[in-house]
Amino acid sequence: MRAVVFEDWKTFPVLKDVEKPTPGPGEVLLKVAGAGACHSDVAIFQDYDADFNPAGLSTGFVLGHENAGWVEEVGQGVTGFDQGDAYLVYGPVGCGRCKACSRGQDTYCENAATNPYPGIGLGRDGGMAEYVSVPARNLVPLGDADPATAAPLADAGLTPYHAIKLALPKLAGADTYALVIGLGGLGLLGVQILQALTGATIIATDMKEDAMAEAEQLGAVTVPGGDDQAAKIRELTGGKGVDAAFDFVGVSPTINAAMQSMAVQGRLTVLGIAGQPYEWTFYTTPYEVELTNSYWGTIEDLHEVADLFRAGKIAPKVTKYPMDKALDAYQDLVDGKVSGRAVVTPHG
Amino acid sequence: MRAVVFEDWKTFPVLKDVEKPTPGPGEVLLKVAGAGACHSDVAIFQDYDADFNPAGLSTGFVLGHENAGWVEEVGQGVTGFDQGDAYLVYGPVGCGRCKACSRGQDTYCENAATNPYPGIGLGRDGGMAEYVSVPARNLVPLGDADPATAAPLADAGLTPYHAIKLALPKLAGADTYALVIGLGGLGLLGVQILQALTGATIIATDMKEDAMAEAEQLGAVTVPGGDDQAAKIRELTGGKGVDAAFDFVGVSPTINAAMQSMAVQGRLTVLGIAGQPYEWTFYTTPYEVELTNSYWGTIEDLHEVADLFRAGKIAPKVTKYPMDKALDAYQDLVDGKVSGRAVVTPHG
Amino acid sequence: MRAVVFEDWKTFPVLKDVEKPTPGPGEVLLKVAGAGACHSDVAIFQDYDADFNPAGLSTGFVLGHENAGWVEEVGQGVTGFDQGDAYLVYGPVGCGRCKACSRGQDTYCENAATNPYPGIGLGRDGGMAEYVSVPARNLVPLGDADPATAAPLADAGLTPYHAIKLALPKLAGADTYALVIGLGGLGLLGVQILQALTGATIIATDMKEDAMAEAEQLGAVTVPGGDDQAAKIRELTGGKGVDAAFDFVGVSPTINAAMQSMAVQGRLTVLGIAGQPYEWTFYTTPYEVELTNSYWGTIEDLHEVADLFRAGKIAPKVTKYPMDKALDAYQDLVDGKVSGRAVVTPHG
Amino acid sequence: MRAVVFEDWKTFPVLKDVEKPTPGPGEVLLKVAGAGACHSDVAIFQDYDADFNPAGLSTGFVLGHENAGWVEEVGQGVTGFDQGDAYLVYGPVGCGRCKACSRGQDTYCENAATNPYPGIGLGRDGGMAEYVSVPARNLVPLGDADPATAAPLADAGLTPYHAIKLALPKLAGADTYALVIGLGGLGLLGVQILQALTGATIIATDMKEDAMAEAEQLGAVTVPGGDDQAAKIRELTGGKGVDAAFDFVGVSPTINAAMQSMAVQGRLTVLGIAGQPYEWTFYTTPYEVELTNSYWGTIEDLHEVADLFRAGKIAPKVTKYPMDKALDAYQDLVDGKVSGRAVVTPHG
Repeated sequence: MRAVVFEDWKTFPVLKDVEKPTPGPGEVLLKVAGAGACHSDVAIFQDYDADFNPAGLSTGFVLGHENAGWVEEVGQGVTGFDQGDAYLVYGPVGCGRCKACSRGQDTYCENAATNPYPGIGLGRDGGMAEYVSVPARNLVPLGDADPATAAPLADAGLTPYHAIKLALPKLAGADTYALVIGLGGLGLLGVQILQALTGATIIATDMKEDAMAEAEQLGAVTVPGGDDQAAKIRELTGGKGVDAAFDFVGVSPTINAAMQSMAVQGRLTVLGIAGQPYEWTFYTTPYEVELTNSYWGTIEDLHEVADLFRAGKIAPKVTKYPMDKALDAYQDLVDGKVSGRAVVTPHG
Repeated sequence: MRAVVFEDWKTFPVLKDVEKPTPGPGEVLLKVAGAGACHSDVAIFQDYDADFNPAGLSTGFVLGHENAGWVEEVGQGVTGFDQGDAYLVYGPVGCGRCKACSRGQDTYCENAATNPYPGIGLGRDGGMAEYVSVPARNLVPLGDADPATAAPLADAGLTPYHAIKLALPKLAGADTYALVIGLGGLGLLGVQILQALTGATIIATDMKEDAMAEAEQLGAVTVPGGDDQAAKIRELTGGKGVDAAFDFVGVSPTINAAMQSMAVQGRLTVLGIAGQPYEWTFYTTPYEVELTNSYWGTIEDLHEVADLFRAGKIAPKVTKYPMDKALDAYQDLVDGKVSGRAVVTPHG
Repeated sequence: MRAVVFEDWKTFPVLKDVEKPTPGPGEVLLKVAGAGACHSDVAIFQDYDADFNPAGLSTGFVLGHENAGWVEEVGQGVTGFDQGDAYLVYGPVGCGRCKACSRGQDTYCENAATNPYPGIGLGRDGGMAEYVSVPARNLVPLGDADPATAAPLADAGLTPYHAIKLALPKLAGADTYALVIGLGGLGLLGVQILQALTGATIIATDMKEDAMAEAEQLGAVTVPGGDDQAAKIRELTGGKGVDAAFDFVGVSPTINAAMQSMAVQGRLTVLGIAGQPYEWTFYTTPYEVELTNSYWGTIEDLHEVADLFRAGKIAPKVTKYPMDKALDAYQDLVDGKVSGRAVVTPHG
Repeated sequence: MRAVVFEDWKTFPVLKDVEKPTPGPGEVLLKVAGAGACHSDVAIFQDYDADFNPAGLSTGFVLGHENAGWVEEVGQGVTGFDQGDAYLVYGPVGCGRCKACSRGQDTYCENAATNPYPGIGLGRDGGMAEYVSVPARNLVPLGDADPATAAPLADAGLTPYHAIKLALPKLAGADTYALVIGLGGLGLLGVQILQALTGATIIATDMKEDAMAEAEQLGAVTVPGGDDQAAKIRELTGGKGVDAAFDFVGVSPTINAAMQSMAVQGRLTVLGIAGQPYEWTFYTTPYEVELTNSYWGTIEDLHEVADLFRAGKIAPKVTKYPMDKALDAYQDLVDGKVSGRAVVTPHG
């Protein structure tokens, strides 16, 4: 079968023929409906090498950690699946037996250091292929919903969902405000998730005007960048500041703008992986604001993301690429040409 | 000034002249904009006596525990109020110094047994009069919002708000369901509050068709009564049951219907004071469902209720009565003729 | 191998030779170190039949749902286990893929109705045998701790732990009180867990004097039964009542005594499965008390129970029975002769 | 009466005669039993001036924000106090009517900018005098406990208590670890509070050996400073890191050491007001760790601190100074000569 393979550090992936996988014990073979191309994949083939390898990857695997597809075949010991049924795939793969994995949070597996890979399409063969084999417990049912469109939710939906869910206590009640910084794929889904789950007023910001317009259409109030951005945001909140902020960029200026916009006792989650520093001090932080980060989510979270999608409450914007244009998906991502999320659809 | 006075047990209140109050130290005199007539007042003058007195009341006081008005005069030691500004009144009055009162939850004052009265219009003179004097800390600002319409929020808004806020963790996330039983004044505000604060699907039920129609207009899905009510409710939830239920009636059949509709790990709050029994057993309760009751709310909750009202997110339906028709408000309540909430407006 | 088999409804189990199990894909074969005999087993062979079958069991399986043992062999697809290592076994077995199972709470599996059995030793062959095969994800490491003594923790430790953990917010802070009713195996472990996790004053009660003495040795204050029991308990709390109560009996008098002892905003969890009714009413329940039940626990909870055991903070009291005396364990249980927990140790 | 007055910026306080206060409406006059001398007072008279005034103070007031005393006289509108009864004083004074004040959290008063002063002994006359007048709601009963010894709890007890209470969810369960950095007055009370409320293993560190020894006597495990401090701490936790850390120093090295010691999903609270920066980045923070600060506490928290003191679970170490040696208390504090907390006892 054809697959998009990451062969070596600092090397653009290749489209090539590889052997069709066989599902092992406890696994399910999916016919891939869609596989999202993610910015973190670009980081892997452009920035990673033997010295900079924060995710602990090997080289030589099929890319694609945002996957959905149809059941094709089940491995030994697996029951309860019908061929052709559509599933979304939880990407992280932990040891399966530590405390974190036992609660479906493989992202924080206690045995990460000794696991062979952190996830599907991350060291282990992913979904940028005609078929992918995944552990049965990683599958989340999609029912009648379109799996190709759903695919990006596995990361671009799950990551904001998890962070938002942890912040819900801050948004519980009247007169609450949420700030979303960075209106790409994750940020726009973040706006939709906040709309679906809370009564908060959503304030959104981005450098791109069309992204701002999209956020407005989704119900957000937008504030452009600039020196007085935090002051404008605070004004929208009646002076108190925002109760929860989600920074999908993660550069110093965005974290600073977010912190300057916070209400006392708020929560600022940095999700963007730019990795730039923020200089925290006791006196420049509103009291009891929690500054935190967050990484992907839990299996249960992904069930809930699928619930929102199946109920029509969230809808990722996708551009589909057939299998033979799969590398174009990554090239367009590199070139900043993708509108919404690029999804490779191996079976059309 | 004229006032509606509850003079003795089992006796309909009278409209009579009483002395205009003078604000004591720490108090504020309000010119009353509106005072809501509440079913619990009817219980007080119809059902209470020396032997049945669950609220620990004396006789001989001005009724009205749902009040709003304009600042007229402040007592000693009170600063920061401008004459004519509109405020909603938190009704409960505790000792002011125990743990519960220190967090603004006078309803659960640790010294209730030795307090002279439980609240304004409850043992202490209330707002069914031209003026009422209240502790300054009981005032919640209304800004430009209409205080006469706001008055019922002091109980009919605060009571559901408090119970709903405590249940929000059960409604946090995708695919959640809230059940509202009893669509009178409190229940319809409950529907609005759930809409304003959560993304839950709201299922509502009542014996009256017009109440059901109102709930539908507010966005709820309705289910009529009947033997298969719980089954129909469960079907609407995809089989799992509701995550939170609020019973504003409190008779055995409503509590039973609610419990039969619950999801595992849900929360069933009985707010209606009918006081009928529910036979709880280990095996007939879905696992980890919390059965609880709730009484009124906190000062902070009332601030949040005012926030929702000022933002146009909740709107009590009121029928206004001038002062000389004040007794009609109670008579109509007794006769079941009031649509929405009866509010006495002493100053027109 | 020898095993204790439940052959039919209303029939005492038999000790007989059965085939040694082979671990299936994803399973691990344990050499059994200990299998606890539980009161619920007695209910199964004494009270259950085709008409009364709340757990949804079939007949004809090896008993034992409180198991621990040493790794003997692993099935296909299982890695990371070393032969001879000691593990405690999580008993419930759900579908493994619904929301509840994904967070390790197989007890509330959404697909319980279509699962073949609810757990190990419950429809599926359990640990009252020389060997038992279990899903790898159900194993919790014991390190150097003695697995035979640990075995009862799988139920008698996990059940109170789960209920206590859910009640911890009620016990967070100074001047809190926990009530434990019923000081058998679960109740005495409940006292130890409360001591290990909270700063609450623990009040304990039982009909048996020696059980009361044991609870006192574990640090609890005890109150005998009797008409004024609730009043005495309340007095110990300075009048406010207990913040959390755990009823390990579940008859009407114990639930009543617990409710009469509650503080406003407390939590009363019924864990005992006697199934007797409690007549709940709005006016006889302190405000906001949560009445709830609870069933077993999560895989993560069992990890934490094992942590407490390995740290020496909890210690089940066990009486060991060799394999050829296994039926005596159940007979002694039926006869009320077991002190602590009866544990069958097939390998001595 | 004699009082310790802060007269001007950058000026050591003076002991002088001032008029004995008269309690205003809603106030209570206390005969001072004890007034703690706090490091933040030193900052006020040494570091503050018109340009650096983070607390928004005026000059010319009696110092002392850690106070306890006996009721001497009550102002108008105050009832329920008996002369001679002992009370601990909540220091913060907000507007009394915003959301934050309504829940007893005057520290975060929404009207702080327009309030005349932030607290008793902070802009408003404090307790370093023979008498002090305070709002009735700021009083927390001490019963038979010694008010002179209790005085420091108003800040040195309340500040760690509040931060610890917010972190309790992180310490709920088995195998949890708390780190306390800085074992002065607040830190040692922090160790005692953690012991009283949680089952966590407490790890403590300080530069001073005797402070370390005291922490050990209180049940903590200690780790000295040094390059490998974080590694040693992590080793004590079995590798996972601490679930909650409390930094009572707040310099860059302590915040860094704390962050390097954190477990995934932990909470790091900086309470020390040194104000030095910490460079936060996405990749150097364990996932979901909350970095936050905290300031003083709520009235309800202070009730709970008093509960712990009255129950003998916490005991501040104090050195008492008679009134005529009151300035020595501050001079000893400046000179680093105070062991425990310096408390001025105006009435011996």
